Amino acid sequence: MNSLINSDFSYATRCGPDEFLGEVSRIIEQSIMRNSAGKLRSMALKHFESKGKMLRPMFIRDLALSMNLDLALVLHWAVTCEILHNATLIHDDLQDGDEVRRGKPTTWKEYGSEQAINLGDFLLIIAPQGLIKSSLSSKNDLLHLFTVMSSRVVAGQVDEFELNKLQSEHNLHQQYLDCIAGKTSSLFAGLALGVGLIAGAPKEFLSSLESIFFQLGHVFQIQDDILDFYGNKQRGERGCDIKEGKVSFLIVNYLERNPQDFAVLARILRKKRADTNENDLQIVQKLFNDNNNLEFCLDHLDRRVDDLRSHSLLLTNIVLNNLVNSLIEMILAPIREISVEQINA
Amino acid sequence: MNSLINSDFSYATRCGPDEFLGEVSRIIEQSIMRNSAGKLRSMALKHFESKGKMLRPMFIRDLALSMNLDLALVLHWAVTCEILHNATLIHDDLQDGDEVRRGKPTTWKEYGSEQAINLGDFLLIIAPQGLIKSSLSSKNDLLHLFTVMSSRVVAGQVDEFELNKLQSEHNLHQQYLDCIAGKTSSLFAGLALGVGLIAGAPKEFLSSLESIFFQLGHVFQIQDDILDFYGNKQRGERGCDIKEGKVSFLIVNYLERNPQDFAVLARILRKKRADTNENDLQIVQKLFNDNNNLEFCLDHLDRRVDDLRSHSLLLTNIVLNNLVNSLIEMILAPIREISVEQINA
Repeated sequence: MNSLINSDFSYATRCGPDEFLGEVSRIIEQSIMRNSAGKLRSMALKHFESKGKMLRPMFIRDLALSMNLDLALVLHWAVTCEILHNATLIHDDLQDGDEVRRGKPTTWKEYGSEQAINLGDFLLIIAPQGLIKSSLSSKNDLLHLFTVMSSRVVAGQVDEFELNKLQSEHNLHQQYLDCIAGKTSSLFAGLALGVGLIAGAPKEFLSSLESIFFQLGHVFQIQDDILDFYGNKQRGERGCDIKEGKVSFLIVNYLERNPQDFAVLARILRKKRADTNENDLQIVQKLFNDNNNLEFCLDHLDRRVDDLRSHSLLLTNIVLNNLVNSLIEMILAPIREISVEQINA
Repeated sequence: MNSLINSDFSYATRCGPDEFLGEVSRIIEQSIMRNSAGKLRSMALKHFESKGKMLRPMFIRDLALSMNLDLALVLHWAVTCEILHNATLIHDDLQDGDEVRRGKPTTWKEYGSEQAINLGDFLLIIAPQGLIKSSLSSKNDLLHLFTVMSSRVVAGQVDEFELNKLQSEHNLHQQYLDCIAGKTSSLFAGLALGVGLIAGAPKEFLSSLESIFFQLGHVFQIQDDILDFYGNKQRGERGCDIKEGKVSFLIVNYLERNPQDFAVLARILRKKRADTNENDLQIVQKLFNDNNNLEFCLDHLDRRVDDLRSHSLLLTNIVLNNLVNSLIEMILAPIREISVEQINA
């Protein structure tokens, strides 16, 4: 395995998460150094100084271990998925006008929108490079999967801007699900499918894996939407989604039960970001509180989690079952406190 | 060759340019249909309705024929390069604020900047998909080349925004060359290298090919800069570069000989696009006219073309020599009229 020997990764089959994520970061940095110079290089390195949770490489590691895969085999796939995710964050922050990410100014805020477009493009391009150079037997399938899942992520972004136009209160729930299917769940499903392909798993197993992680993506995105309004996302402010006019799960779920409030919510969501004030957030919060919106949303999430847990593959595969349950716990941890706090408030 | 059989391309080794370019367009459309739906699909199809000159696929065809290559072998490489080029155009138009491309509104102008970012991302992602599915023996090298040349194009874009800050009149010429090396010439060099790789050409030939097409890229970009000010680029207006504050070859060449005019040109270039008026363009034109700037630039271009023509490979390879000369003529055709008109004016 050329590409594995080139990296100095001492691939104990079961190295710890810090070692694995450290290796992913090191390869990302090498790739930046190899493919860029000057300003582009410094912007890229700067972006990766704050690494975030690295949830996706961690999922890949956990899943690989659950299949008894040598972690060296999934290293470049983890790098590809992590670079892709970061490329989308950089473009996403620009599109949404988010000024803070991981406690630091976003790329467009620091270097201007032109350079943020360039940096995201650069990362999209180099994401699969390590994979191309690897000698994995599943390489072609992984590269194809990369193009398919990435283009679905972009399609989700396209749909999101359509959803946020909020043209009517009808069919919002389905539109919302289509949108998060693209922007979040297709990457979750794709990264898991990739690990399955590397393991040479049979077709049926692959499609179960894809479906489980797709659902996990939905769980992640719905908690993320709840967290945005009720928690602290390290963005230096709360309620970014409302300010950005995003039709989050909280909005979708609320309007489904209270269509009569479409006009008042639409008015606030359609305001420019800078014009949305604390008073607007309080109006939204009062509507949500008066109608137990948080409880309804948490109930919905619970039902999704229950569905996910009862997937037939998990009933027969204890190792995967344990893994998925621990991932669910990890994903829901940030909103566990909120639920208690807010409902008792 | 799976991927070639899948496409219905009746690959007569020497099919005409219209047939080849038609096939490239057909595969691009298929790829859009396969990878997208809804709004994303309609934006992508709309963009490719106006195809432009398709210079890059044409170069690939001509070069393949000069090496006696079956055109079916270079079809997916041509598709990859053409989609990549269009992705960069969409992001470039947004970054530059260009409102018209190929006689039609640009993507950002029609659908907003968020969707222009999305469409460019989508095209960057799907560009190499046909290649991934092909069974070309040089596939891995081509995929790697795609990532290297694309990231150089992005690096050129990054450098361009630095150049356009116009922080001093020193070293502008070198900065300009670095910048067009990335944004234009690396794609010209890469597409030619790709054809050489497909042909299985020896290393020395490959590096000559790369170097010749790299220089051809410089010739193309310098004529393009001249055309922007003196010709009609189908953008519905003249002097876009000046309005956008671009440090074009005309500016670089002028300031090299007339550094005392740095302040007056910098003042005009730094104006916002909407604030740059006809009077500003006339000031620039008068400076250029009084100092024979067009002649100097055309002289410089002539010298570059002479250098290119005297490349050692061309002196021994008559077929390639004829090809390169015809490409030079094609590239320079749009400014041939200008030179006569303007100098006689």
